[in-house]
Amino acid sequence: MTQQAELSMSDPGRLAPAGPGPDTAELVRSLTARGEALLHGSAAGEAVECLRIARMLAGPGDERPARLLNRAIRQVVPRWHFAMMNDHERNAAYEEAIIATVRPGDVVLDIGTGSGLLALLAAKAGASMVITCEAEPVIAAAAQQIVLANGYADTITVINARSTALRVGVDLPTRADVLVTEIFDCALLGEHALPALEHARRELLTPDARLVPRHARLLGQLVESDRLRSHNNVSVACGFDVSTFNQFRSTEYFSTYLHSHDHRMLTAPFELLKVDFGTDLPAGTSEVSALPVSDGMCDAVAMWFELDLAPGVSLSNGPHHRYTHWRQAVQTFDTRLRCEAGLPVALNVSHDQERVHVRPCSPTADW
Amino acid sequence: MTQQAELSMSDPGRLAPAGPGPDTAELVRSLTARGEALLHGSAAGEAVECLRIARMLAGPGDERPARLLNRAIRQVVPRWHFAMMNDHERNAAYEEAIIATVRPGDVVLDIGTGSGLLALLAAKAGASMVITCEAEPVIAAAAQQIVLANGYADTITVINARSTALRVGVDLPTRADVLVTEIFDCALLGEHALPALEHARRELLTPDARLVPRHARLLGQLVESDRLRSHNNVSVACGFDVSTFNQFRSTEYFSTYLHSHDHRMLTAPFELLKVDFGTDLPAGTSEVSALPVSDGMCDAVAMWFELDLAPGVSLSNGPHHRYTHWRQAVQTFDTRLRCEAGLPVALNVSHDQERVHVRPCSPTADW
Repeated sequence: MTQQAELSMSDPGRLAPAGPGPDTAELVRSLTARGEALLHGSAAGEAVECLRIARMLAGPGDERPARLLNRAIRQVVPRWHFAMMNDHERNAAYEEAIIATVRPGDVVLDIGTGSGLLALLAAKAGASMVITCEAEPVIAAAAQQIVLANGYADTITVINARSTALRVGVDLPTRADVLVTEIFDCALLGEHALPALEHARRELLTPDARLVPRHARLLGQLVESDRLRSHNNVSVACGFDVSTFNQFRSTEYFSTYLHSHDHRMLTAPFELLKVDFGTDLPAGTSEVSALPVSDGMCDAVAMWFELDLAPGVSLSNGPHHRYTHWRQAVQTFDTRLRCEAGLPVALNVSHDQERVHVRPCSPTADW
Repeated sequence: MTQQAELSMSDPGRLAPAGPGPDTAELVRSLTARGEALLHGSAAGEAVECLRIARMLAGPGDERPARLLNRAIRQVVPRWHFAMMNDHERNAAYEEAIIATVRPGDVVLDIGTGSGLLALLAAKAGASMVITCEAEPVIAAAAQQIVLANGYADTITVINARSTALRVGVDLPTRADVLVTEIFDCALLGEHALPALEHARRELLTPDARLVPRHARLLGQLVESDRLRSHNNVSVACGFDVSTFNQFRSTEYFSTYLHSHDHRMLTAPFELLKVDFGTDLPAGTSEVSALPVSDGMCDAVAMWFELDLAPGVSLSNGPHHRYTHWRQAVQTFDTRLRCEAGLPVALNVSHDQERVHVRPCSPTADW
């Protein structure tokens, strides 16, 4: 660690005893240069520390430290946090489920807290103690501030760590009675929900702990869409064969709003995967049959989840949930798949601890 | 550099002289682990090299090297390359401009070639020689393959470097008669177009070189949109004050399809910036006046460019270009700005070598 990075943010006065002057200007330049180097060297977290001090010391005319700081912050804190906190359907469903699940006096564990919202809801629902964790230091510090600002610092403890690093007797006084978590990507498993839950059940929860969510399903639908296909496939451009570029195609899903792209559904939704968060789900492969309801060329499978948060409370990022911040997962196929109405299509669905992958069983796909 | 990373891709036989066996399996495991470590250590380019060999040697049942390789590739090659190559409006405009500009016998410089498409168009238009560069090694290699596959290897030289590293007498035999380039982000300047053009004019082009594009304008429009605002602003969620999270707000623009978000335009489009690619454009600040045509609360400025590629040939990523792969740039304001029809709003427009930044001149913004 460099000397600059060690400078304490809590004592900026020490750095500029006589106010902005030649020495301060030189220090700002040096810190800014160091922050920029860290940023370009993929050490955005350290860049944030450095540039925060530079911004604090910079004169009002020097916007460079603030701009670089914002770029570093954007690498550390993904934009979707904002859309997520503003996703009223998500918030309302979790609020209802937490009120239905948490009982006065409960010890609650919340995994991956972000802004601290689920922890706050658990505290408000009557938990005697909420332990929550957040892996990203910058976000954990903000969650701590938000907990404080809302008057729940006595009930909620924010720990800057992955949940798998937590220990009963150290971070939690006892095993937790309730787990609440929202670490789900658009295709459910992408944010390490399975290993986190597995560890929590084994190490951090009482045997009969109540879980929010309790179950989930991953659903799929076959889609014909030139627009979606064109995001992950090239053939000819201006008469030139550029298909060599397909070596860079994503073989995994990406997220998008289906409603943003012209498309036609070739099947009704079908189930790809079922998850009971109360038991382990080992990696595996299954065959799923999808029934086309119209003829067409299938370019991709669209995927989304349905979370069972509590009795009668569910949450989905399906295409009919127009404002879901998750959007939908889309995985394009290497070659288009000819579909005929009424003729089932066999799909191979495999998943490990963090990804679901779907492909047609038959390699006889057709252009 | 480790021994693994030095293994030659061109001689895989040396690695597995007796076909897959226990030694190969161990090598695959070791290469895969090394590739994964490089990937998590933000060295995706080196991870690609390592994992390519692992995939080549892996048995058909071992999909892990291929999956990790694809993840590494996705870090090195952004997805937008596909949408860009499939952006017919873009391709057609550049094709028309290049045909109108390149004369038989020209030496052409193309900056940032990607798939090699513009270089191919210049060669087809009659250039005697096309020198093109691409900073990303993996993409440069693919461009070379695409040039070869289309039969232009004699005319086009792909150099794996930034254009600012090119030298006449070394990389180019003479200064180039024509420059073609498409290194523009949604708000024009974000891909270092200005420094690249400045260097090229000074070091790589004849004094009267023809440029594609010749000029550009950056346009803006004030927008009211809760949806856009919610991507970069939080206040209250479930009754809790989470506004502390706004410290992580992006102070710069992001790209999105305006048509994907409910919004209302408060002004007609107005000009933010004018660029003549034939002369230097130093960093600067100007005041721009926008005239609201209806009352409303302004959440953001939407921005897009108009490129003048050649006489009569232009290209834009404005909101009426529905399928533009660039999408539009959106910069939200820290606080909403009250607009009244007919009452001009003064905006401060500043730019450096790679960013445009817009903010209301008056700090009296209003919630």
